Amino acid sequence: MGCKVVIFGVFLLRLTKGLTKMRESNPGKFLLFLLFLNVVSTIVIASAPPTCPADLGSDCGGDSGEWEGEFFPGIPKIKYEGPSSKNPLSFKWYNAEEEILGKKMKDWMRFSVAFWHTFRGTGADPFGAPTKSWPWEDGTNSLAMAKRRLRANFEFLEKLGVERWCFHDRDIAPEGKTIQETNANLDEVVALAKELQGDKIHLLWGTAQLFLHPRYMHGAATSPELGVYAYAAAQVKKAIEVTHYLGGENYVFWGGREGYQSLLNTDMERELDHMARFMEAAVAYKKKIGFNGTLLIEPKPQEPTKHQYDWDAATSANFLRKYGLIGEFKLNIECNHATLAGHSCHHDLETARINGLLGNIDANSGDPQTGWDTDQFLMDVAEATLVMQTVIKNGGLAPGGFNFDAKLRRESTDVEDLFIAHIAGMDTLARGLRNAAKLIEDGSLSELVRKRYQSFDTELGAAIEAGKADFEMLEKKAIEWGEPKVPSGKQELAEMILQSAL
Amino acid sequence: MGCKVVIFGVFLLRLTKGLTKMRESNPGKFLLFLLFLNVVSTIVIASAPPTCPADLGSDCGGDSGEWEGEFFPGIPKIKYEGPSSKNPLSFKWYNAEEEILGKKMKDWMRFSVAFWHTFRGTGADPFGAPTKSWPWEDGTNSLAMAKRRLRANFEFLEKLGVERWCFHDRDIAPEGKTIQETNANLDEVVALAKELQGDKIHLLWGTAQLFLHPRYMHGAATSPELGVYAYAAAQVKKAIEVTHYLGGENYVFWGGREGYQSLLNTDMERELDHMARFMEAAVAYKKKIGFNGTLLIEPKPQEPTKHQYDWDAATSANFLRKYGLIGEFKLNIECNHATLAGHSCHHDLETARINGLLGNIDANSGDPQTGWDTDQFLMDVAEATLVMQTVIKNGGLAPGGFNFDAKLRRESTDVEDLFIAHIAGMDTLARGLRNAAKLIEDGSLSELVRKRYQSFDTELGAAIEAGKADFEMLEKKAIEWGEPKVPSGKQELAEMILQSAL
Amino acid sequence: MGCKVVIFGVFLLRLTKGLTKMRESNPGKFLLFLLFLNVVSTIVIASAPPTCPADLGSDCGGDSGEWEGEFFPGIPKIKYEGPSSKNPLSFKWYNAEEEILGKKMKDWMRFSVAFWHTFRGTGADPFGAPTKSWPWEDGTNSLAMAKRRLRANFEFLEKLGVERWCFHDRDIAPEGKTIQETNANLDEVVALAKELQGDKIHLLWGTAQLFLHPRYMHGAATSPELGVYAYAAAQVKKAIEVTHYLGGENYVFWGGREGYQSLLNTDMERELDHMARFMEAAVAYKKKIGFNGTLLIEPKPQEPTKHQYDWDAATSANFLRKYGLIGEFKLNIECNHATLAGHSCHHDLETARINGLLGNIDANSGDPQTGWDTDQFLMDVAEATLVMQTVIKNGGLAPGGFNFDAKLRRESTDVEDLFIAHIAGMDTLARGLRNAAKLIEDGSLSELVRKRYQSFDTELGAAIEAGKADFEMLEKKAIEWGEPKVPSGKQELAEMILQSAL
Amino acid sequence: MGCKVVIFGVFLLRLTKGLTKMRESNPGKFLLFLLFLNVVSTIVIASAPPTCPADLGSDCGGDSGEWEGEFFPGIPKIKYEGPSSKNPLSFKWYNAEEEILGKKMKDWMRFSVAFWHTFRGTGADPFGAPTKSWPWEDGTNSLAMAKRRLRANFEFLEKLGVERWCFHDRDIAPEGKTIQETNANLDEVVALAKELQGDKIHLLWGTAQLFLHPRYMHGAATSPELGVYAYAAAQVKKAIEVTHYLGGENYVFWGGREGYQSLLNTDMERELDHMARFMEAAVAYKKKIGFNGTLLIEPKPQEPTKHQYDWDAATSANFLRKYGLIGEFKLNIECNHATLAGHSCHHDLETARINGLLGNIDANSGDPQTGWDTDQFLMDVAEATLVMQTVIKNGGLAPGGFNFDAKLRRESTDVEDLFIAHIAGMDTLARGLRNAAKLIEDGSLSELVRKRYQSFDTELGAAIEAGKADFEMLEKKAIEWGEPKVPSGKQELAEMILQSAL
Repeated sequence: MGCKVVIFGVFLLRLTKGLTKMRESNPGKFLLFLLFLNVVSTIVIASAPPTCPADLGSDCGGDSGEWEGEFFPGIPKIKYEGPSSKNPLSFKWYNAEEEILGKKMKDWMRFSVAFWHTFRGTGADPFGAPTKSWPWEDGTNSLAMAKRRLRANFEFLEKLGVERWCFHDRDIAPEGKTIQETNANLDEVVALAKELQGDKIHLLWGTAQLFLHPRYMHGAATSPELGVYAYAAAQVKKAIEVTHYLGGENYVFWGGREGYQSLLNTDMERELDHMARFMEAAVAYKKKIGFNGTLLIEPKPQEPTKHQYDWDAATSANFLRKYGLIGEFKLNIECNHATLAGHSCHHDLETARINGLLGNIDANSGDPQTGWDTDQFLMDVAEATLVMQTVIKNGGLAPGGFNFDAKLRRESTDVEDLFIAHIAGMDTLARGLRNAAKLIEDGSLSELVRKRYQSFDTELGAAIEAGKADFEMLEKKAIEWGEPKVPSGKQELAEMILQSAL
Repeated sequence: MGCKVVIFGVFLLRLTKGLTKMRESNPGKFLLFLLFLNVVSTIVIASAPPTCPADLGSDCGGDSGEWEGEFFPGIPKIKYEGPSSKNPLSFKWYNAEEEILGKKMKDWMRFSVAFWHTFRGTGADPFGAPTKSWPWEDGTNSLAMAKRRLRANFEFLEKLGVERWCFHDRDIAPEGKTIQETNANLDEVVALAKELQGDKIHLLWGTAQLFLHPRYMHGAATSPELGVYAYAAAQVKKAIEVTHYLGGENYVFWGGREGYQSLLNTDMERELDHMARFMEAAVAYKKKIGFNGTLLIEPKPQEPTKHQYDWDAATSANFLRKYGLIGEFKLNIECNHATLAGHSCHHDLETARINGLLGNIDANSGDPQTGWDTDQFLMDVAEATLVMQTVIKNGGLAPGGFNFDAKLRRESTDVEDLFIAHIAGMDTLARGLRNAAKLIEDGSLSELVRKRYQSFDTELGAAIEAGKADFEMLEKKAIEWGEPKVPSGKQELAEMILQSAL
Repeated sequence: MGCKVVIFGVFLLRLTKGLTKMRESNPGKFLLFLLFLNVVSTIVIASAPPTCPADLGSDCGGDSGEWEGEFFPGIPKIKYEGPSSKNPLSFKWYNAEEEILGKKMKDWMRFSVAFWHTFRGTGADPFGAPTKSWPWEDGTNSLAMAKRRLRANFEFLEKLGVERWCFHDRDIAPEGKTIQETNANLDEVVALAKELQGDKIHLLWGTAQLFLHPRYMHGAATSPELGVYAYAAAQVKKAIEVTHYLGGENYVFWGGREGYQSLLNTDMERELDHMARFMEAAVAYKKKIGFNGTLLIEPKPQEPTKHQYDWDAATSANFLRKYGLIGEFKLNIECNHATLAGHSCHHDLETARINGLLGNIDANSGDPQTGWDTDQFLMDVAEATLVMQTVIKNGGLAPGGFNFDAKLRRESTDVEDLFIAHIAGMDTLARGLRNAAKLIEDGSLSELVRKRYQSFDTELGAAIEAGKADFEMLEKKAIEWGEPKVPSGKQELAEMILQSAL
Repeated sequence: MGCKVVIFGVFLLRLTKGLTKMRESNPGKFLLFLLFLNVVSTIVIASAPPTCPADLGSDCGGDSGEWEGEFFPGIPKIKYEGPSSKNPLSFKWYNAEEEILGKKMKDWMRFSVAFWHTFRGTGADPFGAPTKSWPWEDGTNSLAMAKRRLRANFEFLEKLGVERWCFHDRDIAPEGKTIQETNANLDEVVALAKELQGDKIHLLWGTAQLFLHPRYMHGAATSPELGVYAYAAAQVKKAIEVTHYLGGENYVFWGGREGYQSLLNTDMERELDHMARFMEAAVAYKKKIGFNGTLLIEPKPQEPTKHQYDWDAATSANFLRKYGLIGEFKLNIECNHATLAGHSCHHDLETARINGLLGNIDANSGDPQTGWDTDQFLMDVAEATLVMQTVIKNGGLAPGGFNFDAKLRRESTDVEDLFIAHIAGMDTLARGLRNAAKLIEDGSLSELVRKRYQSFDTELGAAIEAGKADFEMLEKKAIEWGEPKVPSGKQELAEMILQSAL
């Protein structure tokens, strides 16, 4: 039998041994049987291009074998050409080696490409089929294709001048029939990744995809099904292992299904308890294997669930505190998630920072008039400036960084669009860094803030801040002083200063 | 070498030679090849289960051949058992033959099942793979499967006691390689539908699916590509024809892609002009073939686009008026679309009604805290009561009706859930009708409203309403009368009256 | 000098002694001087009817003196008449002494009238002047008027059959020129309140109004001005004292101004630290004076600030945990605040409950299409049922209760509207209680939930819940079990069961 | 006798006898009495500082008499100093006389100061009292104060270098006891305004304030009370007259109360008919008196009502078309209103433009996370660039302009803040104009758009656009052509180009 290729954006199938007989006597029927058998484990909406069975090896064609030459032959190594350049394939603001505030731009930014959006994004949406057709895709989800795709990723990183990447376990290697087979697939791909990383490329973080497969439809750590909880534990265990193997600097938990669709059929308390137990076990396992990367929780308010337990930075912090996990985790703040929760991105970054939890940033943006996650590349210079202000206050993000958890619009179907989008996103944040530095050098904004609080830089202020001023003492002072004067907040001046720095 | 197919983005295929030979020598291989061949017609994100090639007939297995016995063997014909019944598979409020306000309940409601949600909904969402695996599905998108699915639909209607259905062209029959082949597939399925409809079942409306296929990614009638415009015209032409053939009472336009993702790359004025030309051509064609069904536009504010041109009832009415189409169309108001546009469902129904445009209702509901289309079954008795109040004021909906454009939650995976959801949705609207009738009989709410406006039921009021009161006359009166008295609006009393009727 | 009355919805003025001379020589000028002098302390937007100077005593006219006879002469004592009653001034569902689930309805509900909305609400909105003109108001903010208003409140409670009330310090007694004078005013009114309370009426909670006066424009405990912090401490100290004096069962903090308008001019970290110090001092003072009432924080996401620090239940819980205050406070959840934060009311109640923090409920509702706090009376029976479900799970709310933090619509200007609104609100919650009891008796909803989680009611489930199942053990099980089965979530069935109970 | 006044809801007053006597014997008392008399005209929630009676003249103190010297003594005439200036009181981008795209900047912008926000804004919000205390305010709403305030306005315009202003009738002159008295007050102030305008200052538009007074609580043209309708007609008649007298270039209708709070007590159809009759009468009266200014409707979706009839540009256009008013009105688009309606500002401007209705822009901005009208000064350079792009496409706005319908934050209480805010707002739009010109000169963005639609610049495209391509012709073409090619939408490239121009 020749090409056992199958089934594109909707399903892949795998052969099992016991079926050989049926296979021989009635190939068509056999195939259909397999379709049913494997269908749920293989459907990859919104992320899976056409796939070839994972275990069929080179039979799936020379196509999924070696790819000759470059993946991006028309794209040069992207260089810094300065703000006056009209070349879309150049940086106008990001100059990796340039020092800003005593640190190289690349060390402030620590950019990372998100493998899933860039190499597994298909352009599908709830009302539309995939639209991307990258030349290196052979229409399979084979191991061979997985490796080829990985090579494309590393060429992309090299041309873009980005030194970090992030992945979900299931987007770099195909799921097998069993956990063992799945893990074997993953190991094979990860071995290649280690080789391709070499000395230059680093893994910013890895994570386990616990939301796509139907088994996780009610949650993973918060599924009411014990078997799903155990399955998720096995998956996360392996994902931490391979992250460790690849020298991952962090490991992320995004609980896309850890929430509910309706409180009517949900025991929220029990689910949250389970999630805490799961996190405790992850901490224990991480320590056991000597993985020193930071564990990160990525808040999101909703979508796909009506309500996700890691709603925002404050909600996640409450969870960590309630269950005694506060020292073991940091947060990965995503701008689009913050705005879906009703906050500005800047707010949730600051909330994470002042709770000592700012670990990483998923650099993207939403549409202000849209009630779902659009994961657009951040192009807003003002917002980027505020984001960088927080990063500077935080002393940088290391061992975290900026991961481009952003995707091309569905209608952007040229290979060069992948570059253009990343370049514009990098430039916007770089411009934000330059502006934030300008604001610091200018000093008038921070001086405005300092002055607003200077009445607390006094003896009584210090007593209050030290918890030594009781109500009776304060009442006495209030009576003594009479009506307090309250100066202007100068918000428009602050906005003018910011605008001038853009 | 084996399969040379390259499926980019799941849809492009390159044909290779020697098909006949391959078919003969290796049926399994050939089957796989065909799978690729039909790939576009089978990618039905959010609606398509695994599929078998359309043209393989019985080769695709006994599975897609005849289905023996009932599709819903455990489900009885649903009967009215009254409000005290605890049987989930019974109506508590909907009693089809019972008369309310001089008309049978079934004639007020004119319920319809939406084929796409109920028979092609897969449970996929932007972060998750399909979850449904109905026993009658064989994993193909074959013509045989299409017919079997249609039989399931008619059995479903019969058991549910619903006499109408609605469809999108592409969800009842697979897309072929060419327009001609696609139309032939459609004709074959439609012939069966006509037979299955018989005298008892009616087609509430048909429509063309102009949003799933990548060719429509920039729009159909508003695509910047002329070829896409022409393709869409061909598709709508055929869809109107088959709707006419099936005795369709209406034909619907939902422009899921008729809008924009960004104004930066969009010529909105030109796109709207194109949309108007397209609608004019549809009107002309409808008349030419003698189709007397109502043409309906279905407003939706956004999703999948950032901005859809048929934003809400008022926006759609403006479009119709601007282009002189106001007498040729009515509106199909969907509750979840109304709330996404910032209106209550009741508001958009009333807006349609008083513009003379209320033609049909897509009976569903959104989640008040969720910024995307959840298409839930309407379970809110108060809202259902208000909806029915408008329907009564409108003198009913005929030739329109209530189409259940609503889907099971992704996590509802039992066959009986299909029945439970529809029963609860029907019961909620039926309860709404009973309550609205109670309100009318009680009379106190309408009396409250009448009294509020009674100062206009006077000579001067009549002059004003006839456009005969100019500002000078009114000023004279205002000076004569002095400060007007303004009575209480009695909103809480109105709410109490409503609540009492629930 | 005769009528020293002044100035209605915008300002009140008070005479000071040192100005006697100017007063004699030029009364007009003197008056204007005072207008300026006192203007900020006296503007009572959205809550202040016309006022008479507080210190002018009976000179302000017989009007503000004794009020003879009833305040609500046309309104009878409201009685339970059952669901079939058409009398707006009767209860259809609330039957105070009737037992439901082993407790009297009144003990489940513990209803309270909010003095500020009901007796100080003026109907003003950001675009409109006051609209209410209650007959007992004399257009002053005098002490005499304050007392008269208090009597109206107690008559209202008595006729409505409600045994609890709540107040803000500044709405029951006029602010004076100094803290001492203000406190004296408050003492005088509070003494009368104690008398009027007698044995029958209880104070559910008191609170300090820290948002109306311009001194609090940048916050109270989070103001950048030390003097404002001290002033707020003095005010809260006194408010706790009078709450204690009146036997208050709780004391509430609503931080309407504790937040920011712009992060650009804000040091969020320092402000949150100050807020924590303030709360610590409140706890210490409460204990010092022997006040045993519960301290409650009332979350609200925004409005009047762009971002309020007590955003929602989870955010408030994080604050309490971070600063070691978790045992000292509970939460007062307001439904309209929950929905503004993007949650259902039910969600935030459950979040409070499972964090051990559900202390009180502000019973109101927002408009689902409106982005600001509308504080409407809750009329939604389904929502009321879910609210009561949580209350029952919580074992009731005592020492908290249901406070009607709800206001008449601006256009509802009849005295009877005050009764109608409260009756409808009480009836809706009472109906919710009856429905919740029905659901419990029926048992099918809780059984549905129990079954969903039963896989955890096993040995391994217990091990997981006890934190004794590590990833290696779980992986072993997952491999052993293979692909887990995941049953339907039955959400539509759950919704059907709920709807049937309404 | 004491004060027999009873002020209900702050507005009703009962006259007592013996006024003359009282005035002589006790000027202070008389003054207070008058305060009551004028109470309605002085309640300016969100805009009214404490006021002195309108007709007391100098009795109200030297304070409300002549104001000596400058109103803004510390503020110089604002000059253009270029982008590198750090002086907050200078323009960095707005250079009035500089030519951009063949027109002076001031002629593109046609800036206008909104009298109500800048001179009657008090800083009050739904939870807070006024915070502003401008030195020129004497705490009264007297005619003398009205004139003094007007002088301040004209000095402000002169120092700011703005040549246009806008007003609501009630914010420039106090309401009297009767329509006649009110009109006389208005005439007196308007006469001074004409004098102060001279040749240099123009009235961009006038309008009638039909939302603050309780009489308009149910609407003005859409009030269910005939007397209110007539009263509103009288008020608008006069407002058009004085606008005409002052050479107003436009006249605006903002129907803040023309909508509903609840559909339960509303006859929306009848209200909309009344509104149309009212607009027709306004058109007739305008023509009768020879006023040639443009009539403008200002859309807003909600607030203060739950639903306002002029929801957005499209809804307003539908209203105008339905009632045959389309040639008589244009629209005044406000950015913050557009975003509250779920659109980008750019979208509603474009919608107005392509409906031939773009007449004026209210230049402000909302907070993207806030669900109410914040009326902030627009500081977003990207949005300003898009706004100016539309203005350029529209060939400018004349006879309309940019009105700063924007207010200081409540906490901005320095006089200089008034200047800073306007300067920053003007600079942001000026920067937008410069950027839009840069984009046009660069040409790559418009070229990108042109190319997207070029397939329609063909014979068949022309036939389609001319309405000459029927479905049969199009189907034939579609079959002939086969699957159409659909190129990338290049959204990220378009965003990159825009970002580069900022």
